Amino acid sequence: MSRALTVKSVFKVPALKIASRHLSTCATYFPGEPGAPVIKTSSVPGPISQQLNDKLGHVFDNRATYFLTDYYNSIGNYISDADGNLMLDVYAQISSIPLGYNNPELIKTAKSDEMTNALINRPALACFPSTDYSKILSEGILAAAPKGMSRVWTALAGSDANETAYKAAFMYQHTKRRGASDFSAEELESVMDNKVPGASDMVILSFDKSFHGRLFGSLSTTRSKAIHKLDIPAFNWPKAPFPSLKYPLDQFEAENRQEEDKCLSEFETIIKNYNGKVAAIIVEPVQSEGGDNHATPYFFQQLRNITKENDVLMIVDEVQTGVGASGKFWAHEHFDLPSPPDMVTFSKKFQAAGFYFSSADLQPKQPYRQFNTWCGDPSKALIARTIYTEVAKHGLVESTSRVGDYLYGKLEALSEKYPIGNLRGQNFGTFIAWDCKDADQRAHLLGALRNKGINIGGCGDYSIRLRPPLVFEQKHADILVGALEAVYAEL
Amino acid sequence: MSRALTVKSVFKVPALKIASRHLSTCATYFPGEPGAPVIKTSSVPGPISQQLNDKLGHVFDNRATYFLTDYYNSIGNYISDADGNLMLDVYAQISSIPLGYNNPELIKTAKSDEMTNALINRPALACFPSTDYSKILSEGILAAAPKGMSRVWTALAGSDANETAYKAAFMYQHTKRRGASDFSAEELESVMDNKVPGASDMVILSFDKSFHGRLFGSLSTTRSKAIHKLDIPAFNWPKAPFPSLKYPLDQFEAENRQEEDKCLSEFETIIKNYNGKVAAIIVEPVQSEGGDNHATPYFFQQLRNITKENDVLMIVDEVQTGVGASGKFWAHEHFDLPSPPDMVTFSKKFQAAGFYFSSADLQPKQPYRQFNTWCGDPSKALIARTIYTEVAKHGLVESTSRVGDYLYGKLEALSEKYPIGNLRGQNFGTFIAWDCKDADQRAHLLGALRNKGINIGGCGDYSIRLRPPLVFEQKHADILVGALEAVYAEL
Repeated sequence: MSRALTVKSVFKVPALKIASRHLSTCATYFPGEPGAPVIKTSSVPGPISQQLNDKLGHVFDNRATYFLTDYYNSIGNYISDADGNLMLDVYAQISSIPLGYNNPELIKTAKSDEMTNALINRPALACFPSTDYSKILSEGILAAAPKGMSRVWTALAGSDANETAYKAAFMYQHTKRRGASDFSAEELESVMDNKVPGASDMVILSFDKSFHGRLFGSLSTTRSKAIHKLDIPAFNWPKAPFPSLKYPLDQFEAENRQEEDKCLSEFETIIKNYNGKVAAIIVEPVQSEGGDNHATPYFFQQLRNITKENDVLMIVDEVQTGVGASGKFWAHEHFDLPSPPDMVTFSKKFQAAGFYFSSADLQPKQPYRQFNTWCGDPSKALIARTIYTEVAKHGLVESTSRVGDYLYGKLEALSEKYPIGNLRGQNFGTFIAWDCKDADQRAHLLGALRNKGINIGGCGDYSIRLRPPLVFEQKHADILVGALEAVYAEL
Repeated sequence: MSRALTVKSVFKVPALKIASRHLSTCATYFPGEPGAPVIKTSSVPGPISQQLNDKLGHVFDNRATYFLTDYYNSIGNYISDADGNLMLDVYAQISSIPLGYNNPELIKTAKSDEMTNALINRPALACFPSTDYSKILSEGILAAAPKGMSRVWTALAGSDANETAYKAAFMYQHTKRRGASDFSAEELESVMDNKVPGASDMVILSFDKSFHGRLFGSLSTTRSKAIHKLDIPAFNWPKAPFPSLKYPLDQFEAENRQEEDKCLSEFETIIKNYNGKVAAIIVEPVQSEGGDNHATPYFFQQLRNITKENDVLMIVDEVQTGVGASGKFWAHEHFDLPSPPDMVTFSKKFQAAGFYFSSADLQPKQPYRQFNTWCGDPSKALIARTIYTEVAKHGLVESTSRVGDYLYGKLEALSEKYPIGNLRGQNFGTFIAWDCKDADQRAHLLGALRNKGINIGGCGDYSIRLRPPLVFEQKHADILVGALEAVYAEL
């Protein structure tokens, strides 16, 4: 058992060997992992965690803490808390941690001279890029780029990935309208007072229940929950309805098509009514924070058609869905779009953040328009490169697809016996969710699961979402399903 | 000479020894530094830099590139480009890099197990903080907190440090007005449409020529240059005039007081006219990007008095001025304010970003309001801790104050002979700037200086700003002054 995994053993001893071939369903990525969760306290969080959290509260907002985490003793799919409880982690830092905790390849990257160089000499990337930045991007973030995307703008988190994409959209649309003309005197003057015509009166159109971040521009497009938005000024930007599909999908094909057509029609009406003022739309392949709301490929294909016809840019927010969890590297690859999106944003599982694009026109004509001091972080680009390399080398997207199908089947069987409502994510890797009766039942279930050694999270008003690492295997799925069966049986 | 400083020598051999006492004016922090710049190409950027930049341009926006940088061969105050030119760097990644390039103590931090752990197991800090996060914050970022500030909210860059501070201000003001009441049904509903009363109609008041970032909220308070703002939607928030002082200050005391009083009066009028709708003001101790515009301590004292009287929060943006360059750790410590600001934001030289505050009321009552996935980055908090420790141990703020006074004296003498206009930054460490005749002259001077081995930057419309690391010593000042004298003599 892995309780011997101390700092020393994890960081210093190259004991964790990884098979250099694709994982078969039997192979295991983390041979050093424990065979099952280990729960030592009567409930989670335990007393040490609570004591440390009280201390943290004196200096940092800690009201959302699940438990204080011992990252040194976490390994692979298992997260350790301060009390020595070792839990199977199917939440993974809100859908981050693609390669599991204390991944040996990431340890190598972290210990490398390249990383040291990136950390201690942090560049202002747009002014003083390092001689090797092009290579680092090309081998990592760009090697992973979705089809049709050849360039990247690097940022620091999902929110600013989206906001810089919005800025690119606004600049693109206004530049196109301005044609060969330079900025007018009136534009140059009015913009300093935050007024049109220098400031834009165009809008970003987002969807009901979407989540795109919490800074002022991104929060204006976020429509998930009131508590995310209350008391904060917001742009008067529109929202379109997102389909509410009925499950199981194969039993409600006609109704769901009707629902999607209704939403598409409203979507198109909003764009027409805005009369050329919608600069871009932003859409998640699956609305994650908002409750794991899926739509069919048809819906996304039509979004692409309508935006193309109306000269509106399409931004796909893959902050939570990207980097493999859906069983494809990018979730929008499930949709067989008639043409690629204009921009695709990423963060979370890639640790690095930013947006992909292809059109050179999305790079403003003048320098210093899309600009800031850091413009990303080479240390995160190095992490992203290792993540991409490992994912490709070990076929982790394919194994996630396979394990996801296995897990979905088990959950579908469970749902015959227990109140597992609207099971979602078939053929969508481990990106799986379902509904509880209500928020109280969900809170009970999440707590009960944690006490049984499963760290798991919710989304929307009463859904449970699965967000395990890409190194989640069939044996982990079996442990999860066993725990779920136990807590549902006790309901 | 230091061309032997290869990756190997910098990272692997502990050859760089540092005196463990405070630096005297003769002691040197980086014994391995070259004695002078080394310029190998006829101009900067040289051919290799240009070739690599062309390549980078295929994947990344590179139009603002000065030169491609060889960070492995940069050391202390000297930055190396791809062609092997070694320049004295008084720009330091736009006012970052406090301890110089390849600082041995930062190498130790980067190579530590703590850093590896932070890099490869990146937490969602508000949900799963590490057992040692409180300690890391307390020994670093919080040990450096300005007077009266006991808490911190960590972010990722200056822009989101400011935006999260704005959010804290809006939530604070609305919560106060709401009193014991809960959110109303109308608030909960309207906010989902980005409308009042759920969304806020309060404003942030900033100053003409200020720079506070480039995301949508921060950009709405930025008033530096049109090119930063054009084509981007902005909130209809007000701006107040910032004083234009006349130099030398001791010759224009009466005029400057009159100018500041005029600005203060307009400032107060705006606040009164907004009738309780100004949630907060944000102000830089020195408007940096906007042209190194200073105001006197009197001006800032009055801002604090007026904001207190009108129940408006005061946010001091120390993103560029903070962490020692002004000759005090926080530049607003020069002002002897009647009471501390409500929030102080930081980033750049600390590598970590965020805002300090003291009032527990600036932490929203409900969790998940000030929240995001990462809520900062422990790897940057570790870097910040080492920066703080080194700065304190070696008295780098005091030495910056001393070296700044020496440098200011030399520049004052030069300004008798050459057109060095409105020299600014007396008794303000190395945070020094002056005006050129116009933008063309500045471009010529910056280019000529670079060709003589000085990497230097501008600000405002025609100013040159000095932003060397905190390990900039008298000998470096002499090299800079020599180069300046040479390029001005050739004008």
